[in-house]
Amino acid sequence: MDLPELPPNIRAATPEDVPAIGRMIRELAEFEREPDAVKTTPEQLHEALFGADAVASTLIALDGSGEPAGFALWYRTFSTWEGVPGLFLEDLYIAERERGSGLGRGLLTALARIVVKNGWKRLEWNVLRWNSEAITFYDTLGGRPLDDWLTYRLSGAALESLGA
Amino acid sequence: MDLPELPPNIRAATPEDVPAIGRMIRELAEFEREPDAVKTTPEQLHEALFGADAVASTLIALDGSGEPAGFALWYRTFSTWEGVPGLFLEDLYIAERERGSGLGRGLLTALARIVVKNGWKRLEWNVLRWNSEAITFYDTLGGRPLDDWLTYRLSGAALESLGA
Repeated sequence: MDLPELPPNIRAATPEDVPAIGRMIRELAEFEREPDAVKTTPEQLHEALFGADAVASTLIALDGSGEPAGFALWYRTFSTWEGVPGLFLEDLYIAERERGSGLGRGLLTALARIVVKNGWKRLEWNVLRWNSEAITFYDTLGGRPLDDWLTYRLSGAALESLGA
Repeated sequence: MDLPELPPNIRAATPEDVPAIGRMIRELAEFEREPDAVKTTPEQLHEALFGADAVASTLIALDGSGEPAGFALWYRTFSTWEGVPGLFLEDLYIAERERGSGLGRGLLTALARIVVKNGWKRLEWNVLRWNSEAITFYDTLGGRPLDDWLTYRLSGAALESLGA
């Protein structure tokens, strides 16, 4: 994967960012009204982002003093129609103090550059249906909701039972 | 990633399966009422499944004569709440002649085993809202729809514009 040129207030995460990313993941879960949902340990986050078999990548957005004020965590997908990978944005977060500053748009622009530079065809993410502010923002970027599709999940006891 | 023991009529795909997988991808697109949507070449499929930086994996379901009669193509995800990877099932397909034979359930069981064996926590996929037969099947397996979430996609001209 090739990284494109990034704006000055966006950079790729380093292992030293793991504590800040973990803190922001918890802040995002609070915003999503699921404050107790985060079970991830710093060790798991390090492994997922920087381990030998890393599954995800993260961009960090910086405030005016160069401190982390947001992040975008993503992984690659694959479309059997397009024939190339895509990018799924698992988490997009901007600290409350920096909302409206353009950092969210900066992160999405950086992700779009990654997709285009690598010849991929899709940038996708999920949004909570009640988050109308975010939906308006995504619409202005030219995103479109995949209304025809429903996401299913198998987890917990049902997963353990089928996979036993 | 560890592969669990698989049922006798399910096996991991090999490079020799690429033509059969490509054919079944087209059959699935026809079923999804998008017969012209598939742009994927055999070379792209080989790269995605067996290249040095492979992004996806495939299981093949076999009919009574040992011929490919279905497939499941998937890639890894990552949840910042669970701290571990998950599995996203991009395509699940059973040839019409074999529907109702249990091969679909066999593929989903094999995927659930992969998730459980690796200590992952989620098996996810998308389903077309009009595909009530599939939805009923997924419900019987214990899957649940993520009704609170909407998937957004940026592609085509909007993606090129933001990522230029």
